[in-house]
Amino acid sequence: MTSPYAIAETAEPGIPEGFRRLDAGGPWFRLIGPVYTHPHPAGSVIVALRVAPHHLNMQGVTHGGMLTTLADSALGINLAIARGRRGGQVTVSFTADFLSDAREGDWLEAHVIITRMGKRLAYANCDLKVGERHVLRSSAVFAIVERQLPHASE
Amino acid sequence: MTSPYAIAETAEPGIPEGFRRLDAGGPWFRLIGPVYTHPHPAGSVIVALRVAPHHLNMQGVTHGGMLTTLADSALGINLAIARGRRGGQVTVSFTADFLSDAREGDWLEAHVIITRMGKRLAYANCDLKVGERHVLRSSAVFAIVERQLPHASE
Amino acid sequence: MTSPYAIAETAEPGIPEGFRRLDAGGPWFRLIGPVYTHPHPAGSVIVALRVAPHHLNMQGVTHGGMLTTLADSALGINLAIARGRRGGQVTVSFTADFLSDAREGDWLEAHVIITRMGKRLAYANCDLKVGERHVLRSSAVFAIVERQLPHASE
Amino acid sequence: MTSPYAIAETAEPGIPEGFRRLDAGGPWFRLIGPVYTHPHPAGSVIVALRVAPHHLNMQGVTHGGMLTTLADSALGINLAIARGRRGGQVTVSFTADFLSDAREGDWLEAHVIITRMGKRLAYANCDLKVGERHVLRSSAVFAIVERQLPHASE
Repeated sequence: MTSPYAIAETAEPGIPEGFRRLDAGGPWFRLIGPVYTHPHPAGSVIVALRVAPHHLNMQGVTHGGMLTTLADSALGINLAIARGRRGGQVTVSFTADFLSDAREGDWLEAHVIITRMGKRLAYANCDLKVGERHVLRSSAVFAIVERQLPHASE
Repeated sequence: MTSPYAIAETAEPGIPEGFRRLDAGGPWFRLIGPVYTHPHPAGSVIVALRVAPHHLNMQGVTHGGMLTTLADSALGINLAIARGRRGGQVTVSFTADFLSDAREGDWLEAHVIITRMGKRLAYANCDLKVGERHVLRSSAVFAIVERQLPHASE
Repeated sequence: MTSPYAIAETAEPGIPEGFRRLDAGGPWFRLIGPVYTHPHPAGSVIVALRVAPHHLNMQGVTHGGMLTTLADSALGINLAIARGRRGGQVTVSFTADFLSDAREGDWLEAHVIITRMGKRLAYANCDLKVGERHVLRSSAVFAIVERQLPHASE
Repeated sequence: MTSPYAIAETAEPGIPEGFRRLDAGGPWFRLIGPVYTHPHPAGSVIVALRVAPHHLNMQGVTHGGMLTTLADSALGINLAIARGRRGGQVTVSFTADFLSDAREGDWLEAHVIITRMGKRLAYANCDLKVGERHVLRSSAVFAIVERQLPHASE
């Protein structure tokens, strides 16, 4: 399926092989960037970033809201890819468990699995990981609508 | 109880009466600012902001991750006030339902209720509202620890 | 609004004033019974029961699944009352935090607030309490459909 | 690791190969039975049951509270196996998304993955499935305590 996103073609130094810069999203999503994606065998994309100073809280680890921003965005991006179009989807509910923290310099990856794509509702999970270590488990339900919607995750 | 936060003394134009600038938090929390607080009769504080262009997604409404950042932060701030100290608390789980959207210029308030403050775990809810309209319902469980912790919500 | 439920007219000994037996629901809901309801000033009903031996786990306190059964059912009943009809609603997502336990003999009440009733989605919260003590905080999102649906909470 | 549970040795007609009756749990858990378990390669056990009339709601499909009872119990059983002892664990938070329904006669399996086992907190996910079809996605956080605890999931 053709991705509705523009992906850069060139690799960047310090970024793991196969990851390309994702040039997409509105103002809030861009605050978390730069963000990279990597095609996943299952048809989805891994969304990832290098943890930087602006992602941190006062304790020097990733802020919870930065992690939920990354998860919500990765879910929305993968849903858009699966549907072959952007927009027309809105987050209805979102849950997250915080398993560990991420620190400056960590390569933080969001792995998404869409468990059900219905006509009106879609269900998906997103795990944030640094290597094999779980940082965040999250899941969300999305409403699929034809018109432009609130809460589109970009 | 004395708040562990520094609150500005002067009012600002365009900011509802009684709200004062909150000068606190780490880098990610500051990206969402400026943020204001207002003492709540129940001992907690309302945390609020004026929705600005940097809070939006591509559809021109508040990004889900911006809403969860505000909720997670408002929960953490109120927990710190209730405990009389900052730090030493970590978000364990967080859930949110998205009821409606907020738009540029909206005055968005976070109302927190702590439902249980235990020795090891604390439970609290946070509603985001524009006027009387619900934007986000959220709740979280926090672990209370003595040492500095991951995920402190500032 | 006329309730779509049959409520007994006579009081029962040992049951708080104003509560009447609710004769409704399918087989799984009836396992939790007898269940009682009390009209709530806000138009909703309080759903309650006396904690009995069959509600307990091996530690002698209420099983988590019994609490989520009560909460899910109380949410569904109140949604049906608000809509003036039974059926046609399905639980999409459900979250719960366990704040304390309930024991045999406790009078356990479910208090529901519907925060948004949309055409396609409804949002509601349910707090389980013994007196003023919180036992469970929960919230759910429901899909509203015209045909008979899975997961109707009775 | 030795399981702290008594598992029957004989197979039963109509029960998939390798599943054995689990003779455990308190009164509420026993209402959902009979329940069967099967060792899982990852060291966990699959917990399963044949959907029967007493599991249903008025629409003739599984009641949401029956599904959350099964998920909460399967999570608790697997946590007990991983810890090599029963008791001493309490559900702190639980979230579930309802993807589809199950009907009488369906063989409903609960698959649990423990994502983090800490000293004080444990995190785990539970998927309920009929064949390859997702019925429920759930996740929970547990507090680990030394004394006997509320909400033990049996």
